[in-house]
Amino acid sequence: MYVGIDIGGTNIKAVLTNREGEIYSAKSTGTGKTIKEIDDTIVDIISEFMSAFSDRGTVQAVGIGAAGSIDGNKGIIITSPNIQAWKNYPLARNLERRLGIRVFLENDATVAVMGEWWQGHGRKFRNWIMLTLGTGIGGGAVIDNKLYTGQSGSSMEFGHISIDYRGKKCKCGSIGCLEQYASASALARNAQSLLRKYPASALNLRPKGEPVTSKLVYEAAMKKDELAVHAIEEISFYLGVGIANLVNIFNPEAVILGGGLSKAHRMIFPIVKKVVAERALPGLKDNVKYLAVKTQDKIPALGAAKVAIDSLGL
Amino acid sequence: MYVGIDIGGTNIKAVLTNREGEIYSAKSTGTGKTIKEIDDTIVDIISEFMSAFSDRGTVQAVGIGAAGSIDGNKGIIITSPNIQAWKNYPLARNLERRLGIRVFLENDATVAVMGEWWQGHGRKFRNWIMLTLGTGIGGGAVIDNKLYTGQSGSSMEFGHISIDYRGKKCKCGSIGCLEQYASASALARNAQSLLRKYPASALNLRPKGEPVTSKLVYEAAMKKDELAVHAIEEISFYLGVGIANLVNIFNPEAVILGGGLSKAHRMIFPIVKKVVAERALPGLKDNVKYLAVKTQDKIPALGAAKVAIDSLGL
Repeated sequence: MYVGIDIGGTNIKAVLTNREGEIYSAKSTGTGKTIKEIDDTIVDIISEFMSAFSDRGTVQAVGIGAAGSIDGNKGIIITSPNIQAWKNYPLARNLERRLGIRVFLENDATVAVMGEWWQGHGRKFRNWIMLTLGTGIGGGAVIDNKLYTGQSGSSMEFGHISIDYRGKKCKCGSIGCLEQYASASALARNAQSLLRKYPASALNLRPKGEPVTSKLVYEAAMKKDELAVHAIEEISFYLGVGIANLVNIFNPEAVILGGGLSKAHRMIFPIVKKVVAERALPGLKDNVKYLAVKTQDKIPALGAAKVAIDSLGL
Repeated sequence: MYVGIDIGGTNIKAVLTNREGEIYSAKSTGTGKTIKEIDDTIVDIISEFMSAFSDRGTVQAVGIGAAGSIDGNKGIIITSPNIQAWKNYPLARNLERRLGIRVFLENDATVAVMGEWWQGHGRKFRNWIMLTLGTGIGGGAVIDNKLYTGQSGSSMEFGHISIDYRGKKCKCGSIGCLEQYASASALARNAQSLLRKYPASALNLRPKGEPVTSKLVYEAAMKKDELAVHAIEEISFYLGVGIANLVNIFNPEAVILGGGLSKAHRMIFPIVKKVVAERALPGLKDNVKYLAVKTQDKIPALGAAKVAIDSLGL
């Protein structure tokens, strides 16, 4: 058996699976705020899995996906937007010591793509790309039915494609990076900047001191709040510019959206498609399918388990 | 035996080769201006090859690379920047009729990448990208030692990556396409716009009515003409922005420059490397080699022959 864990900003999702991706059990619990809380939560989940399913075998390895800058080879979280305390934190080694099981770490976009490839929409296509819209924008490409990883094991940083060489500064040091325009954080910032222009917006009625989050914007947009709808339309335009670039590069069979903000795909895709129609090349843009991952699903956690299965297989 | 032909704006280059890429003979002649001249030149070259090397066997197929919008499946040149008269011209079928040999057509960037993969720098790497700097900018990527073609057989249109979503209009209909900033034509336009600012430039002394071409700019830059050097530096900056995007996507082992303007690689690469250092992500930009194809070489023609070999092999 294998455990896959997806550590999000809000929840830790875990699955217990076999080599074929059959799920024996799944759990979701609050992420917690300190390093110790997270470590303890993970250890507890795995221990519970092991005792409840001891008749099926033993856990061979654990795969973990986490947002941020990850050194997969060393199992270290270099920095993470969700958990500030994680700085060069050797998560994999610490868990290995406590559990006595091999632990493999990858970034959240990679496990999300791996999950889609193994058990999600990606199974239907040989050549496709995925963008995960969260605090940043992650990416992945499956080429000829294989996850492309570049020479360093890391690549497809679609959030850091510059769509404006003299545009917004990015914390990566570059200028005009897509994630400054079309991530969940960009949506929140964009909505914040529109508050005065839309005095009637429900977002102006939020409790004092509470920040505008992408979740609040999404919920308001679902209720047709004008500001929120406008803010999502704007980031969808920029996302379309980025996806048009990727369509001209990959001519993919499908573009799959993941990450928290992909919940808004019914608002996002019509604008993305319009921009791609205007900006990508004939022949390359003609047969592209646009899909969103099923939200709240177990696929990233399954992807993390698959990372563990494949890593152990080497 | 196989013939590969690379139809450029100035010259038609042809090679006679075997399946292993061994060159029996090579020719280069002026391209000519009319459809008939080009057709006749190609027929003449192949006839000469066949009679001179009849003891080695017969020509099994011909591969042709040409600039422009190409329908490889139908063997049609839809439009071409070099030869205005080519409009939906069925070059492959017309030549097949006259020669009695199969003829395969591809765009010039594809045959250039194929040639580098088969007999050029590309042999040293498994994952690499190539940009061809000519009238436009073409591209190609070799992934896991295979030429990536997308679902339609066409992809990697690096010239149509937008580096400024509100920038210069491109004739493709999009905005801010890299080839508007960093192709040989962009260089010529850029130099033209700088003529008044640099009254002492040798480019101001060209015969009246003669346009500023990228070739003139390159030659002047080789003599350290300030305008020309400045113009090449500017387009190199934009090329660097585009290549930084591609490094963040592919994390390639090598970036190879081809096309006429790649002759200026000694001026272009230092600036490209600086921009990539500033704009691409650590880890992804660290182990990238920058290479230019050998100029005036036979590699694109060999790539065209390889297209014919592979097409026939299916």
